[in-house]
Amino acid sequence: MNVKVTMRDVARYAGVSVATISNVLNNVSKVSDDTRERILKAIEETGYKLDYTARCLSMGKSNLIGVMFPITEKGDEPSILLRNNPFYSEFTSGIEYVARKEEYDILLTGIESGQECRDWIARRNLDGIILLGIHPESFFNEMKDVKLPIVLTDAYEEYSTKFHRIMVDDEMGGYMATKNLIDSGHRNIAIATGRIGTNGVNFKRFEGYKRALDEAGIPLNTKIIIEEHVNFDGGYRIGNILLELDEKITAVFAVADIVAFGIIKAFKSRGKLVPDDYSVVGFDDIKICEYLTPELTTIRQDIFRKGMASAKAIIDDIESGVVTHETIMLPVELISRGSVRKL
Amino acid sequence: MNVKVTMRDVARYAGVSVATISNVLNNVSKVSDDTRERILKAIEETGYKLDYTARCLSMGKSNLIGVMFPITEKGDEPSILLRNNPFYSEFTSGIEYVARKEEYDILLTGIESGQECRDWIARRNLDGIILLGIHPESFFNEMKDVKLPIVLTDAYEEYSTKFHRIMVDDEMGGYMATKNLIDSGHRNIAIATGRIGTNGVNFKRFEGYKRALDEAGIPLNTKIIIEEHVNFDGGYRIGNILLELDEKITAVFAVADIVAFGIIKAFKSRGKLVPDDYSVVGFDDIKICEYLTPELTTIRQDIFRKGMASAKAIIDDIESGVVTHETIMLPVELISRGSVRKL
Repeated sequence: MNVKVTMRDVARYAGVSVATISNVLNNVSKVSDDTRERILKAIEETGYKLDYTARCLSMGKSNLIGVMFPITEKGDEPSILLRNNPFYSEFTSGIEYVARKEEYDILLTGIESGQECRDWIARRNLDGIILLGIHPESFFNEMKDVKLPIVLTDAYEEYSTKFHRIMVDDEMGGYMATKNLIDSGHRNIAIATGRIGTNGVNFKRFEGYKRALDEAGIPLNTKIIIEEHVNFDGGYRIGNILLELDEKITAVFAVADIVAFGIIKAFKSRGKLVPDDYSVVGFDDIKICEYLTPELTTIRQDIFRKGMASAKAIIDDIESGVVTHETIMLPVELISRGSVRKL
Repeated sequence: MNVKVTMRDVARYAGVSVATISNVLNNVSKVSDDTRERILKAIEETGYKLDYTARCLSMGKSNLIGVMFPITEKGDEPSILLRNNPFYSEFTSGIEYVARKEEYDILLTGIESGQECRDWIARRNLDGIILLGIHPESFFNEMKDVKLPIVLTDAYEEYSTKFHRIMVDDEMGGYMATKNLIDSGHRNIAIATGRIGTNGVNFKRFEGYKRALDEAGIPLNTKIIIEEHVNFDGGYRIGNILLELDEKITAVFAVADIVAFGIIKAFKSRGKLVPDDYSVVGFDDIKICEYLTPELTTIRQDIFRKGMASAKAIIDDIESGVVTHETIMLPVELISRGSVRKL
């Protein structure tokens, strides 16, 4: 480490005690304006940097935000979700952008259980945490007596209402994606999704899909609801399943762009083209959508801004000292590109 | 925060003083085995978690590794490189994987100057840092009296030999990519690259390109050396430039996959197909290579493993207390897919 200016050096320079400096830094008003002035000048001239470790002990604040990912790919290298879906790069970059401006640092980690998360919060004396991706309910049960500000993203489950949430309008997105296909003349529209369950992001997007079908008088066909993992390989499997179906589908709504890419790839590998043979709409608008030809029609959620909103939410909670149970719902938007054909 | 077991609670439970516990935790051998035993049992039974803040002050070790990105896209949202190239998601995930196993945490941040970086190291009491992406030489001048372990990735400049470096064999990669095209019958092979300069990753890949041409007796044609930003938009611009050239090229070596995607996109937007009209080879093997049709032929550097190697290097340096000036050179491999056509 470089030669470090200590509080003692500043004290010597200013001709005061270390305790006096500590009082000034911690805004304990027991010093005269003149002394304060002298100390601030000494700090500037010696180049003293307040060590967060020391400040953390004296003020109980670390200016650290934990950003926690679920760990996936159990096997040789159980790694964080950041690795698998570019969605999380954009999200994390948005968090980092706001944190840096507000003088917080972000700690990035993969966490498997709520207990682990609690231990980590205590060990690092975190000011707040942002949870990315989906965590099981047991996770939150283990976290329930944690009084720290917590921001959840994309969580619909019952327990999640007790947290500060950042969401996008998933139901509306599912509706818009499906309606776009219906308006283009499609009626046999498959949905490619993660496990739908009874709540959560997939469920909501599915609800939107159902609403659009319903509005158009198209009966729900359970044979063309395909549930798989929400990643490229899951999409690839769905693409192959769809090609084997007896049902004559002409379009697919994929609940994530990354799934849509897998589907398109499977189609192409068997000589089927998008949008000539099948129309496809995704969800997210990750950057890769524009790399493909045709570019993917999708539902945009502004991922970088969602990251920014998450960081703002946690910092507001930390600085106000009030843990908020509020839901911020960000809008979605249909981005029409080349992957949908008019019938 | 959850009700926290303090060192005082452990002391009460074990029937010893706080100072005695501190001695045990810091391996100061002034206590009997019996007392040590009793304290360790008390720690276990009370569920006491060693607060890193306290340990950091007592032991001077934070178990924190800073992972620093250059900030790009000057403008409204100057954000970290993580946002722009999926390369960095895989890299960061590799670092996180090893750090988690070794009980380190990673702090992620965007840093513009060496001075900022120094301040940050001091403020956070970091144990070591990993610098991702390219930083200007001035950055390192400002860092030169920092005695902390530092790992650089992909740095060739003169100053970088004073650091622990993780590299891939860029020259060999450039050679293999170009030779693959030559072996397929191509002779007019453009190179799409960032600023070549006189050193660095682009320079080395360019050196490999030249060696392969030279070996095949193909003269270097400076009109088909195109320098642009190393991102999708840069590649897109290069694609358009290549289509306007009088030179009759049949193939392109792009020094990064993300650049190759931009080139392919520009080609397609003007009705030119890969590999029918042009063959393209990339570099990196990011996951997206497989999403495209045809899949991209590229030079694989195992990015996740490179992240792992970076984390291992910094942790070795931290724990040995020896700052290493060593270079770890990881191999590259040609991955033949569908973007190269035999002439």
